[in-house]
Amino acid sequence: MLKQKHSEYRGFRRAGVRLTEELLPNLIHRSDKIVRTLYAVHMFDKAHLVMLIEESLIPRPEGIAMLKALREMETEGIEKVRLDLQTGIYTGEQFLIRRLGEEVGGRIHLGRSSGDLTAVSTRITLRDALLMVLTKIEEFRRVLIDTAAQNLDTVMPGFTHGQHAQPTTYGHQLLAWVSVLERDFDRLRGNYQHVNQSPAGAAIMTGSSFPLNRHRTAELLGFDRPIKNTFDAILSHDFLLETHANLAILHANLLRWSEDLMFWSTNDVNMIDIPDRFCGTSSIMMQKKNPYATQEIKGAGAEAIGGLMTAFMVEKDPTGFPILDRSYSRQGAYRSIDTALRDMNWLVEMIPAIKPRKGLMEERAGAWWAQATDLAAALVAEKNLPWRSAHQIVGITVRLALERNIPPREISPELLDEAAILYFDHPVSLSKEAFQRALDPRCFVQARTLYGGPGPEEVRERLDEYESALSGDAKFIEGAEQKLTEASQKLEAAIDTILKG
Amino acid sequence: MLKQKHSEYRGFRRAGVRLTEELLPNLIHRSDKIVRTLYAVHMFDKAHLVMLIEESLIPRPEGIAMLKALREMETEGIEKVRLDLQTGIYTGEQFLIRRLGEEVGGRIHLGRSSGDLTAVSTRITLRDALLMVLTKIEEFRRVLIDTAAQNLDTVMPGFTHGQHAQPTTYGHQLLAWVSVLERDFDRLRGNYQHVNQSPAGAAIMTGSSFPLNRHRTAELLGFDRPIKNTFDAILSHDFLLETHANLAILHANLLRWSEDLMFWSTNDVNMIDIPDRFCGTSSIMMQKKNPYATQEIKGAGAEAIGGLMTAFMVEKDPTGFPILDRSYSRQGAYRSIDTALRDMNWLVEMIPAIKPRKGLMEERAGAWWAQATDLAAALVAEKNLPWRSAHQIVGITVRLALERNIPPREISPELLDEAAILYFDHPVSLSKEAFQRALDPRCFVQARTLYGGPGPEEVRERLDEYESALSGDAKFIEGAEQKLTEASQKLEAAIDTILKG
Amino acid sequence: MLKQKHSEYRGFRRAGVRLTEELLPNLIHRSDKIVRTLYAVHMFDKAHLVMLIEESLIPRPEGIAMLKALREMETEGIEKVRLDLQTGIYTGEQFLIRRLGEEVGGRIHLGRSSGDLTAVSTRITLRDALLMVLTKIEEFRRVLIDTAAQNLDTVMPGFTHGQHAQPTTYGHQLLAWVSVLERDFDRLRGNYQHVNQSPAGAAIMTGSSFPLNRHRTAELLGFDRPIKNTFDAILSHDFLLETHANLAILHANLLRWSEDLMFWSTNDVNMIDIPDRFCGTSSIMMQKKNPYATQEIKGAGAEAIGGLMTAFMVEKDPTGFPILDRSYSRQGAYRSIDTALRDMNWLVEMIPAIKPRKGLMEERAGAWWAQATDLAAALVAEKNLPWRSAHQIVGITVRLALERNIPPREISPELLDEAAILYFDHPVSLSKEAFQRALDPRCFVQARTLYGGPGPEEVRERLDEYESALSGDAKFIEGAEQKLTEASQKLEAAIDTILKG
Amino acid sequence: MLKQKHSEYRGFRRAGVRLTEELLPNLIHRSDKIVRTLYAVHMFDKAHLVMLIEESLIPRPEGIAMLKALREMETEGIEKVRLDLQTGIYTGEQFLIRRLGEEVGGRIHLGRSSGDLTAVSTRITLRDALLMVLTKIEEFRRVLIDTAAQNLDTVMPGFTHGQHAQPTTYGHQLLAWVSVLERDFDRLRGNYQHVNQSPAGAAIMTGSSFPLNRHRTAELLGFDRPIKNTFDAILSHDFLLETHANLAILHANLLRWSEDLMFWSTNDVNMIDIPDRFCGTSSIMMQKKNPYATQEIKGAGAEAIGGLMTAFMVEKDPTGFPILDRSYSRQGAYRSIDTALRDMNWLVEMIPAIKPRKGLMEERAGAWWAQATDLAAALVAEKNLPWRSAHQIVGITVRLALERNIPPREISPELLDEAAILYFDHPVSLSKEAFQRALDPRCFVQARTLYGGPGPEEVRERLDEYESALSGDAKFIEGAEQKLTEASQKLEAAIDTILKG
Repeated sequence: MLKQKHSEYRGFRRAGVRLTEELLPNLIHRSDKIVRTLYAVHMFDKAHLVMLIEESLIPRPEGIAMLKALREMETEGIEKVRLDLQTGIYTGEQFLIRRLGEEVGGRIHLGRSSGDLTAVSTRITLRDALLMVLTKIEEFRRVLIDTAAQNLDTVMPGFTHGQHAQPTTYGHQLLAWVSVLERDFDRLRGNYQHVNQSPAGAAIMTGSSFPLNRHRTAELLGFDRPIKNTFDAILSHDFLLETHANLAILHANLLRWSEDLMFWSTNDVNMIDIPDRFCGTSSIMMQKKNPYATQEIKGAGAEAIGGLMTAFMVEKDPTGFPILDRSYSRQGAYRSIDTALRDMNWLVEMIPAIKPRKGLMEERAGAWWAQATDLAAALVAEKNLPWRSAHQIVGITVRLALERNIPPREISPELLDEAAILYFDHPVSLSKEAFQRALDPRCFVQARTLYGGPGPEEVRERLDEYESALSGDAKFIEGAEQKLTEASQKLEAAIDTILKG
Repeated sequence: MLKQKHSEYRGFRRAGVRLTEELLPNLIHRSDKIVRTLYAVHMFDKAHLVMLIEESLIPRPEGIAMLKALREMETEGIEKVRLDLQTGIYTGEQFLIRRLGEEVGGRIHLGRSSGDLTAVSTRITLRDALLMVLTKIEEFRRVLIDTAAQNLDTVMPGFTHGQHAQPTTYGHQLLAWVSVLERDFDRLRGNYQHVNQSPAGAAIMTGSSFPLNRHRTAELLGFDRPIKNTFDAILSHDFLLETHANLAILHANLLRWSEDLMFWSTNDVNMIDIPDRFCGTSSIMMQKKNPYATQEIKGAGAEAIGGLMTAFMVEKDPTGFPILDRSYSRQGAYRSIDTALRDMNWLVEMIPAIKPRKGLMEERAGAWWAQATDLAAALVAEKNLPWRSAHQIVGITVRLALERNIPPREISPELLDEAAILYFDHPVSLSKEAFQRALDPRCFVQARTLYGGPGPEEVRERLDEYESALSGDAKFIEGAEQKLTEASQKLEAAIDTILKG
Repeated sequence: MLKQKHSEYRGFRRAGVRLTEELLPNLIHRSDKIVRTLYAVHMFDKAHLVMLIEESLIPRPEGIAMLKALREMETEGIEKVRLDLQTGIYTGEQFLIRRLGEEVGGRIHLGRSSGDLTAVSTRITLRDALLMVLTKIEEFRRVLIDTAAQNLDTVMPGFTHGQHAQPTTYGHQLLAWVSVLERDFDRLRGNYQHVNQSPAGAAIMTGSSFPLNRHRTAELLGFDRPIKNTFDAILSHDFLLETHANLAILHANLLRWSEDLMFWSTNDVNMIDIPDRFCGTSSIMMQKKNPYATQEIKGAGAEAIGGLMTAFMVEKDPTGFPILDRSYSRQGAYRSIDTALRDMNWLVEMIPAIKPRKGLMEERAGAWWAQATDLAAALVAEKNLPWRSAHQIVGITVRLALERNIPPREISPELLDEAAILYFDHPVSLSKEAFQRALDPRCFVQARTLYGGPGPEEVRERLDEYESALSGDAKFIEGAEQKLTEASQKLEAAIDTILKG
Repeated sequence: MLKQKHSEYRGFRRAGVRLTEELLPNLIHRSDKIVRTLYAVHMFDKAHLVMLIEESLIPRPEGIAMLKALREMETEGIEKVRLDLQTGIYTGEQFLIRRLGEEVGGRIHLGRSSGDLTAVSTRITLRDALLMVLTKIEEFRRVLIDTAAQNLDTVMPGFTHGQHAQPTTYGHQLLAWVSVLERDFDRLRGNYQHVNQSPAGAAIMTGSSFPLNRHRTAELLGFDRPIKNTFDAILSHDFLLETHANLAILHANLLRWSEDLMFWSTNDVNMIDIPDRFCGTSSIMMQKKNPYATQEIKGAGAEAIGGLMTAFMVEKDPTGFPILDRSYSRQGAYRSIDTALRDMNWLVEMIPAIKPRKGLMEERAGAWWAQATDLAAALVAEKNLPWRSAHQIVGITVRLALERNIPPREISPELLDEAAILYFDHPVSLSKEAFQRALDPRCFVQARTLYGGPGPEEVRERLDEYESALSGDAKFIEGAEQKLTEASQKLEAAIDTILKG
């Protein structure tokens, strides 16, 4: 075989066959570049062989020999063996030829290509990783719901335009996070379903002239179905863009909440205390308690978004022109997954451990006129004023109070009347009681009993909806995991049958 | 009311109420900035009033007067009236106060905020636009399936790494496009469902102390349900990132196919002819036929991807800090939608009008050894060679042929034997008939009868799957459209009832 | 001429010449798409004609007729005339043929192409716009230096990791902004020099077989020199990426400062007051004073960065493949310029009008241990402690103080000794005086007299360096402007000479 | 010292000082995260100590002991020692305290902060890397100029809109690449000058109350000058955005040329042959010669552009909020530098080794009417036709020829007359000789003798300009390198003096 011993087999790319020069060393595919997908390459090696044998596309004895050898590789450790072989997606063939000779091992690649080797192993790796992300999102939702449930009465200001907007509760806000994560779950589940389809047997775009049983391979690998067009199976990469995009959105959400946590924990806002183990101090400013984890989350989010841009850039070319380029996109997707898991792990630990400074939160909720909306509401309710008139009168009231340095807790109905007279020449004479109620941020929150509002009782009723969404999604994960387990069992059983038979 | 006539009402932001200076002119919200959502603002104005009246939150006579006035606005043309008023999302109140006085018109804003005005009108506008995009994707799939069906025998080379890879058919490739569009549809449908939920009544984050009926408003506006957390309803914007991302992926697909069309229509490749009406000539090089539409599609795709980056950048801040900033993100999303529709319109017209140069396509499919895979396959099938040995022998054969300037159609089995001898010291003696078959690109395609492969008969069977997906998706569109129509009828009926009553 | 009257000339692209169909209406180049560059097209039309006449490349009488007609166009208003003609960069030829017939007007395009028409007009437009940006940066630096000079004693906390880091001054921070703007100026000046080179005469890539005098056209258009390779002149677009990138960096800086201004003006931080005319109030929360301009700046920054991504995406293709696509990149660059100018205009007005709350600023600078660094410094200076030991002892001190709720202004040297004993078993016995000094944020700042530090006297000395950089850069602008004025005069003088002659 | 032996020193962040919990393991700064900057940290450790000693800010004996220890570290290998210590930028202090005790080693950090440790080491690392990039750009220009000089007569088609535009030469195009690289050099030189300024002594933003000699440290570290504002020195990061942006533009250029090389080497275009060592074959399609290096370059370009977006995203926050986040930006910049160097290395080897297929190139240059421009030019020159009339007549000619399948080399002047009659009812009677000349792509090129054009003699004259730019830039590199060498010598000499003294 071009004068080499099997044990020295160097792969199909050596000089002297199609090309006349050896590939430059830094251009060679190496196992360490794809180490995280080697297990999936191994699965495909086995499933493909089973199918070839079952369909009588290779002689049974050679097939058995190869399956046995792959089982042996497992006892030696597939990652170790395949890393040593340093031939990337081709390590199955490399191993079999070195061990069994080209006459036997040279048969595994029948009907396969780098195309489906890469596509199958990428999709298996992504699918498994996405399932981990989905599971972690569930865990994060669990923690948030529980923490929210303990903070339905924790009154604090909500912010718009960076300013105190209205009093709300910490619990209501954390549930808004859960709502976002429900949609993240939904997006990534859709993505999982696009990813978990089988390109096996599509080879490089047209499949094979050999009658491969693509349904069988798909089944053995846990895919939901074989992709119905072999060209699409190998040369469409929108599923990868979708993974990048959905992860980038998840990261953007984590990033935003990290911004919230950092903002709430600034010295001036000071509403929460992040546990020390997530923080570092400074080598010069020993007073500092710097929130480290939130910054790492923000950085990882930025990287995930940049990685999405890389992915789009890679794909811009005529179909089939970018191939090796795509490894830059895939690496970015894996990084984005790893940091999403890492970051959610931190948050799952951090959120329940954060101590909200409840007293300060509530004090602030009333200190900067965030409750003013309901002073106008009182004028409407009690005095039948049109909303806009009430709004303007209170607007004037606030301006006067600020100009005179009167904080909300010290103003009197007289100021309101002064403003009303400025506005429409007569006072409004709001009752003292309504006036007082309107200035209490806790009343503000309690009054919000409309559907979805922050009124504690209302929120408590909504918890059921959050729980029910959570358990519905848990079922999806269970189903998917069970399917993968069964596929794995089928694959080993099929091998056992062949080896016995 | 701070000394102004109703007919001169200038809105609630004038100097002298809360603030002491007039806003700089180039900072004012203006209707022309949101012209495409004015119709949705109008819908919300009406639905909100109906709900306020039904729930007795405003006095009925004032409510009736306002609904009547809005009906009058419709006869004058809502876009015109609202553009003239130049107060953006507040044009409803502006109109009603100017026409009916603050005592009446000042009541419409009860329980509302810029927050839900923006959120509701954005979601209605996006939802309607997404439905148009979904409809256009259906139309594009229809055209592609039909064109593919006419080209199942149109043999042409497929490309990987920019090189001729294997013979396939034009029809098989076009169906791969349809597969992609099925996923685009799926993503955008998921997005539609996230968008079409009602923030109405969530005001700015906490809803209202008035018992607004959020379910009723949601129903009248055609939303699928009210959002279950008022904070989430206003201050989570992952749905907008999702719209951007899914549109960017759709654009990336259109962009890639434009790259294909441009590449196939280069002078050197010359496999297709794009109709003249999509092309321009040059002011200096009068021989030029420049494909214009494909370049516009590529440019719009680049813009959509940049717009996605803008959207991510806008959202990076603590919750509630970016508000006005988001208009830059929204404008980008609308541009992305408009160009996606424009571009698909072009392609829907262009694809069936493109003339594939079938003779040239097939000739090229065999001219550059794209069929070589099956020469090795013949060695496996007829001579029981291991795939790898066959592969290497054909590799040497191709090299020798290229070195000696022998095109595929002129080589003889002897060259194969020469290569085999170089490889393992003996000839392979492939039969003349198998040899000839293996070199015919049409046979290459016909032999690919495995599931999903380009064999014409196989593809014909798959057409059913494409049709069935298409009609399934059509049902979603019909359902969504019907729901919106019914909501619109309910809204008008509710107004009629109030006005009569 | 293919049966049309001159007055009905429709341009060279009509069906029946090279192509057989009229271009789709939405694919036609229109003047309104390039309205901002029409003046530059006009300049090129004139300069090109002058050169053709001077070099005897067209007959003098026809040349004179065309120049006269262009002068007439000026009296009618070049933008109006060219917009009416709706043929984009070809409006010069269009106008001349309609007015003078093809026998005369058909001569202007000799040796030109859409390539250099676009390249020349883009570069002139960009160059002029960049000069405006440079001028505005100068103005902004002026304002910042002046405001800084008034705030060299305005003590406030600086932030790192979102926490109070050390006391510094408002003035010192504003000068850091000036330093950034000096580099922005530097980058954009470099870019100006790359932009202001002449592609005129390069036609579409190879120039012309006619001996065009490229130096002369360059001179008449105010370019610094003709580009030395005609292929580079038309088909390299790194200068446009550079413009995008430099503007995006400028925007990122403006965006960051807007984040600062928003943060400093949050209710909780409350250190500055942004004038009301840059702020709006809320339609529901009448207490709100929302900083509008800063949000617009942030949004525009996000758009500029997304626009940079679009530009990179557009350029990814083989050379010469993206042509029309580039209009999406150019439009983004113009938007980025316009918003940069708008945003700096706001800041130029806003910065001097902002009222720093000096008392609060200084109070805060000492309230959160930002001065702690200098307590350790006192231990080093007075007690010869190693920095690290001093740092740790003060670290323990701060922890104890926080645990015991003792603010900095109330702690005593005893606490320091308690910490020291915990650290190394003996007290440090810092003198009362050193202790007091170390806790005063104003002393902290005054002690920083090293080069570049915030000590007021030190900063005052640095003002000279800022002034000198400012006036150096002003000279560049003057020189560039003068050169453009002279070129314009040369052009008109050359026309006068020809018309007289 | 809080009960630990010096040899077990764990850094200043241990629980029990300022904070009460140990930092989570995956949040700790580790040396392996910044391995490439450890050498620069070491330089700063030494230079800072020298300055402290010279200024008598620490006791001389302790200073000497520390410098000696650092010299010892060098003999052990600074990277190894610092990696083992795993405390990142603090490895200098860590090493000195473990070896010499806190009483001595605890003095090195006086007046320093993580801020300037990071800023100094980043700027030194970036500066050195940028100098390598500049040097590599020079080498690439050298190779391109030489290859161009050998191909001034290699006629080939140039492309616009993806179509054959005009004949030009391979050499002229390669020189256009050099022009681009001249601007890349220019941009990166400007960036180098912004980077190579000293933040040393700026600590975290305000410098120090100790009178550090910032000019001296700057000098010893090879910086051009100390940054004139300590806040700017640490908290402005536009220099990093600028590095990212300029590298992304460089990458975009390399990427575009890779697109060119891939396009030219497609089977259908086939104008160049890329050496086998840059190409791989396929595991299934043994005929394939896939250009690998060009795809890696494209992928790396995409990553660099995505990395730029990450960098912008990181910086969006109030000043001083992103600190740890920035490591994601820095890592991206380093990757971008490494791949730029790798990619230019490939191109420096590849370009001279590429074999242009000259015969085919020239044949193609005339096969698709790319020369048509000069047929119209002949009508202008010989028949005094207005350009536009000539252009239209040739446009009709080309259409007729294409409709009748007549290639350029076979058409006759009669066809031109037929077109002329269609256009303006009379023939043009171009002389046979002019007609023939006009159809020869070589003549087309030779006629372009205007400044910057592809006429071989003209290009030869321009070579001087390219050479002169090259040697001018070489001088900058030499100057910069010499300065760095001298600084390094000064630093060692200063240490020697102290150790002796």
